[in-house]
Parts: sequence; C-alpha cells; structure tokens
Amino acid sequence: MEIKLIRQVLEANQNVAHEVKNLIRKNKQCLINIMSAPGSGKTRLLEHWIPQLQTQGLLPSVIEGDITTTNDTLRLKHLGIPLVQINTEFFGGDCHLTANVILEGLRALENEKTDLILIENVGNLVCPAEFDTGASLNIVIISVAEGEDKPLKYPLMFRNSHLALINKIDIADACEADVDLLEKNIRLVNPALDILRTAGKTGLGLEALTRYVLAHFHKETL
Amino acid sequence: MEIKLIRQVLEANQNVAHEVKNLIRKNKQCLINIMSAPGSGKTRLLEHWIPQLQTQGLLPSVIEGDITTTNDTLRLKHLGIPLVQINTEFFGGDCHLTANVILEGLRALENEKTDLILIENVGNLVCPAEFDTGASLNIVIISVAEGEDKPLKYPLMFRNSHLALINKIDIADACEADVDLLEKNIRLVNPALDILRTAGKTGLGLEALTRYVLAHFHKETL
Repeated sequence: MEIKLIRQVLEANQNVAHEVKNLIRKNKQCLINIMSAPGSGKTRLLEHWIPQLQTQGLLPSVIEGDITTTNDTLRLKHLGIPLVQINTEFFGGDCHLTANVILEGLRALENEKTDLILIENVGNLVCPAEFDTGASLNIVIISVAEGEDKPLKYPLMFRNSHLALINKIDIADACEADVDLLEKNIRLVNPALDILRTAGKTGLGLEALTRYVLAHFHKETL
Repeated sequence: MEIKLIRQVLEANQNVAHEVKNLIRKNKQCLINIMSAPGSGKTRLLEHWIPQLQTQGLLPSVIEGDITTTNDTLRLKHLGIPLVQINTEFFGGDCHLTANVILEGLRALENEKTDLILIENVGNLVCPAEFDTGASLNIVIISVAEGEDKPLKYPLMFRNSHLALINKIDIADACEADVDLLEKNIRLVNPALDILRTAGKTGLGLEALTRYVLAHFHKETL
C-alpha cells in the first residue's frame, strides 16, 4: 500500500519533470542537477567554478535546495548571479527537490538573463536520486572523506547520474582514501558514468569540468 | 494530501516504536540508535568501540541498516557478536529504518545473548531523524569533514538526538575544520545535546563514550 502510493508520487513527479524539460527547451536553456551527501563540498565547488563558466560566455544561475536556512545562497551571493532559494520545509520538509519546486524555481528566474541553470539539491545521497527534476545532466559529487564503498551502498544515486565528481582530492592523503578503489566501485555500479577528480578548494579539475559542461550545454541548446 | 499521508505513516511508526520499547524493557535490554550522513565513520567507530563495551561486561549486538549490500556487517563480523542485517530495498527501498524493521531485528536476536543493542541506521542526515525506532538513546555522528554549518541545515537530526559525536577529529586540521564553531552551531540548534569529540581511527574519545553509554545502560536496565 505504502509502495503503491510512492509509485503514484513518482509518476506525478515524472509528469511535472516533462513540463520542466519543455520549458527549458523552449527557453534554449540547460538545466543541471547537482546531488551529493551533506558536506561533500557542493557549494564551495560552485563558488569557485561559476566564474570559470562566466569566462566561457555562459550565464549561470543557481536554484538552491535546502530543508531550512539560506546559508548556501548567501555564500554564492557575491557572484552576482541570479539565485533562487527553495526551502523544502515549506513543502512538507522534503529531503529532496521534486520537479514541482524546480518549476517554481524556473518561474522565479523568468525575467533573469540566464542560460545555464544549476540545481544544488538537498544534501542527501538517497532520495534526490529517485526524483527526476527535469535536468538533462545529473552530477553526483562524492568527497574522498566519505569512504570508498559508498557507490556500492547508494547505487541508485550513481546509476541515475551521468557524471561523478570525486571531490576534496586535496585531503585524500589525510583521509587515507584509496581514490582508485573509489573509482573502481563507481564503475562497478555504473560503467557508463563519466568521472572527474576535483578539489573545490584548490580548483583542481574545474577546467575539465567546464569543458565537459560546455560540450553538454552546446548539445542541449543547439 | 501528501503531508496528511506522511502523518499517518509517522503515527503508525510511533505505535510500533512503543511495541519495541516494551519488548526491550521486558528483556532488560537497552537499545541505542546511531545516525549520521554517509561516510561520517559509524562503522569504523563501532569496530573500535565495541571491544571496549565488552571489557565493561556488556553484551553488545548490532542491527545494521543499509539500503543494499552487507558491507558493514561483514566489517563487524570479526568481533564475534550477534549481527542482524536489514536491507531496506526489501521494504520499499527506505532511506531510514522504521520501528517495524527494528522489531523484526529484535525477533532475529531473540535467542542471542545480548543486552545492549546498537542500531547503525542508514547513512542519511534527514529521514532517519523523523522515525522513532524505539531506542532510548539517539546518537548523531558528524564528521569534521562535513562542514561547520550542518547542524543549522539539518536541525531535526540534532534536535531529536541526545548525544552528538564530532568524529574524525584526527583530520580536522587537514579539513581546515573549525571544531569550536561546529560545536557552537550544534548548541544553537539544541542546547541540551551532549557532545563528545571522537576519532574512530585513533580511538580518541571512545573511553568517554563508553562511560556515557554505561551510565545510560544502567539507568535503562535498573
């Protein structure tokens, strides 16, 4: 009974995700969904990466998902780009972003000059993977501090993503992290997943990430 | 409508949590629920801590919650204690443990010699906090790698816990973590929360944790 109901919720979400995709296509925009566990370094990476996207002529904006607080939005404010804060506590305290709230976010961005919309999803390695936001690219970030086995333990997140960023490479030694093993475990779960190694703090890997996203952007907005 | 249904699910869970509490009391046992984001170091801490509990005359056992895989149970196997694996993928893929599956776990432990039952909940800083497992002590673990702001962003978890472990203290410098600020943010959200600093890897703080849990155990099994 509970499972049947969850299916209905997921189907309803899928319908709204199609609406999101149509709107994005109509506006010649590109929507990217960034997911991870809490504390993998999403916001810091965005902070250092977004200026690189701007030098490539892109007009980024961010939809910030959080249960409560506007902390992350405040951290990005100095970038001077359009930001939309979604606090899921006003939508039943959801631990993930549904297509519904993304559609609200797109409406809030209607009069802004933006062509690349980045979603920073709620920090959670489980539920966000179950809900299609309408994004054309799903990025999962995993920090080296989280342990090499996490792709095996949270397979849906790695199966429903297109690109994995192994982040905080700069503290891999301090964490005694085996990055090759982590990468191997990612491939075990999803051999088709692209992988980049990054460090939001030092900027490592961000150029490669820009090239990757630029190629995706051009494909989507042809 | 969706919110109303969530309330019904939570109420049904509460009823089963009472059953769990009654069973634990009848058996003169103590049930402790350990929660955290993925990769905070729950399993490693258990691995190093459980032998200390045994030297105090306790008979620990572990109910391992995971969406999929038996990795953590295998990591604890060498301890030679009773272990119960719960894979939530067989219960609708839940991202948390409900009182229902804990009751199943207790039944699986019925013929085992154990008085202290530790739950290692699914790695998730959101949903496990919403579901009463029937435990008399909720412990939240947060690693220094996760960022000082996490208590503010996931307040329910810190409000519904009795004890917070700030873990991986040994890599605090490498993470440039401000542990005092993290502690301050925990107290902002829940001034009554007890806090210990630990490092599962080096054993730091585990003796204090043993004393804390021993006092709780004696109170519960009077």
